Amino acid sequence: MQKNKGILTVVSGFSGAGKGTIMKALMQAHSETYALSISATTRAPRTGERDGIEYFFKSREAFEQMIADDALVEYAEYVGNYYGTPKAYVEEQLARGKDVILEIEIQGALKVRRQFPDALLLFVTPPSAEVLKNRLIGRGTETMDVIEHRLARALEEAEGLEEYDYLVVNDVLEEAVREVHEIIQNEHYRVARNADKIREMRNELKGFTRQ
Amino acid sequence: MQKNKGILTVVSGFSGAGKGTIMKALMQAHSETYALSISATTRAPRTGERDGIEYFFKSREAFEQMIADDALVEYAEYVGNYYGTPKAYVEEQLARGKDVILEIEIQGALKVRRQFPDALLLFVTPPSAEVLKNRLIGRGTETMDVIEHRLARALEEAEGLEEYDYLVVNDVLEEAVREVHEIIQNEHYRVARNADKIREMRNELKGFTRQ
Repeated sequence: MQKNKGILTVVSGFSGAGKGTIMKALMQAHSETYALSISATTRAPRTGERDGIEYFFKSREAFEQMIADDALVEYAEYVGNYYGTPKAYVEEQLARGKDVILEIEIQGALKVRRQFPDALLLFVTPPSAEVLKNRLIGRGTETMDVIEHRLARALEEAEGLEEYDYLVVNDVLEEAVREVHEIIQNEHYRVARNADKIREMRNELKGFTRQ
Repeated sequence: MQKNKGILTVVSGFSGAGKGTIMKALMQAHSETYALSISATTRAPRTGERDGIEYFFKSREAFEQMIADDALVEYAEYVGNYYGTPKAYVEEQLARGKDVILEIEIQGALKVRRQFPDALLLFVTPPSAEVLKNRLIGRGTETMDVIEHRLARALEEAEGLEEYDYLVVNDVLEEAVREVHEIIQNEHYRVARNADKIREMRNELKGFTRQ
């Protein structure tokens, strides 16, 4: 089937749900299909980070100009730095037929949906809250205070879960990657995304029945 | 992931789109997952047809009693015989966690959706109207009059296409079967179908953050 326009997918999930790992595996397996959205930020590049690859690095002035120009799908300020999603990059990739993936938290996800009403929203969770807690503890890098803060944050994020389209349970990584891939690819078969094909088929049928 | 309730899927499509072949292949490949809905009819059994397998064979009186009892999801009269979908069978299979498939035309599909608002509606088409025409001609069993009548009927059915959720293009059979299977199985991950799991996760998180 001829491929329609690319699909914009927003992936959110609890910290510790493994969404970063899923995204990385998805990109490696299907690099021709997907484009990962690149964020713009005013924070300084860390060692090894390249402009236009990990982030678009911007001055505060340039970032605020993007805000004024409505050139960002969404943005937020975090610990004194701006982070946002440049609209032009997303639109270019979609027009090229790439399925664009945005990894972003829930407030950003809802802003994206307002600007791209046919965006697909996926939420990644571990199999249970117990598993989430154990994964956070298991990292061994966080104090119990931080872990409890993360769990409280997870509870807050769970409040918005009904706004999402699909719930992906990350139990076995390869299965979660396959699920995310199938969900996005099947979305191309949605009737609403095939208006052109349907119109074409109708016109063809009309031609036959008129003869 | 623990499986939720079965999903009711309605499959429609143009005559000659190959939906019967897709359904047969799907059932053979995943007989544990799916249950094909069995129609009730007042027409006489043909040689080899068994009650409760190909059809539930009913007297006209019994069928009209089912109509009066609201025991049918939908029904229609065709060439002097009733055909309908018994509600009890569909509901039993769904409760057992089976994904139930109903092969039915468009008017019936819309009646099903009214009674089962979360039914999934798939429409099967050939790759183009040209291919549809050639398939009908290629069968060699129909006069051109019949073929033209079928194409006119296809045009009528295409009018309702926007009511469906997914468009499945049957070009290569195995791919169409895989698509239908993936579309139905991914539907289990819809947020709206996982309300219990989400509530459970929230309660668990609440328990952790209260400690």
